[in-house]
Amino acid sequence: MSTSSSLSDGSSTRKIPSLPDGYILRSLEENDFNNNLIPVLKTLTTVGDVTKEEFANLYSEWIANSHVYNPLVITNREGKVVASGMLIVESKLIHKCGKVGHIEDIAVDLSEQGKKLGLILIKNLVELARLKNCYKVILDCDAKNTGFYEKCGFSQEGIEMGFRF
Amino acid sequence: MSTSSSLSDGSSTRKIPSLPDGYILRSLEENDFNNNLIPVLKTLTTVGDVTKEEFANLYSEWIANSHVYNPLVITNREGKVVASGMLIVESKLIHKCGKVGHIEDIAVDLSEQGKKLGLILIKNLVELARLKNCYKVILDCDAKNTGFYEKCGFSQEGIEMGFRF
Repeated sequence: MSTSSSLSDGSSTRKIPSLPDGYILRSLEENDFNNNLIPVLKTLTTVGDVTKEEFANLYSEWIANSHVYNPLVITNREGKVVASGMLIVESKLIHKCGKVGHIEDIAVDLSEQGKKLGLILIKNLVELARLKNCYKVILDCDAKNTGFYEKCGFSQEGIEMGFRF
Repeated sequence: MSTSSSLSDGSSTRKIPSLPDGYILRSLEENDFNNNLIPVLKTLTTVGDVTKEEFANLYSEWIANSHVYNPLVITNREGKVVASGMLIVESKLIHKCGKVGHIEDIAVDLSEQGKKLGLILIKNLVELARLKNCYKVILDCDAKNTGFYEKCGFSQEGIEMGFRF
């Protein structure tokens, strides 16, 4: 029997593929710092030398603001983090005080490719945004990754502009 | 003498153009709800019928989470809101627990075009992000508006993908 990855109740799985046997989707935990989280994130971008104390402070900020920050991970049979991603929920005035979900920092362990972990993670983050009453979810990606996000049900909405200090 | 719009100290105005005489840049206040804020936002998108109580609840959430939400407005000589915009500060794990600023919901009163209010607002939101130690600021826009944001110092970074419920 495969482990369900859906955040919704059994009556509404919304076609999220199952995780491989023994893989689990769950909220980030503080001891994931020493559980392959940093190597997974390093597949995405620069992480830098983050100390355990710096991570603990950040984790505390995320937990204290769980109405905003929703970090999820997927672990493998050994319980090791093999994928991670964040849903940020923004409370707006427009759209009748609507909420928008922002998906950030999706990373999958290079040795775990081909198991649809990225797609399963994205679909669960979208489902979580729906449960939190967001009217839409947005994310920014490289042009080369738009096809992947289209498979996840997304459409191109605009251009990401950036200003770096 | 023109009113300065810079959020930085006098030694570091970072080339932000001055506002017209009598115009002021400041944080959003609760009584701006009845001070042209909603008509300004309606130039941007659907706002819907937001009650004073709903706005008060949202404003309280923004104030209680001022480490995340930074709503700014520009008022004219009569003290009326003529432009508004939001800076959201996101605390990340990547980039050595770096912070990213997200600019959202920039709106300028149609009758106040041609005074560079949009550019002044954006530059001040960027300066605020710098003061809050963000390593970059990002925003999403329609392809037709990239030229305006390039004038504000931004470059194209990626594609915005969206999923609507």
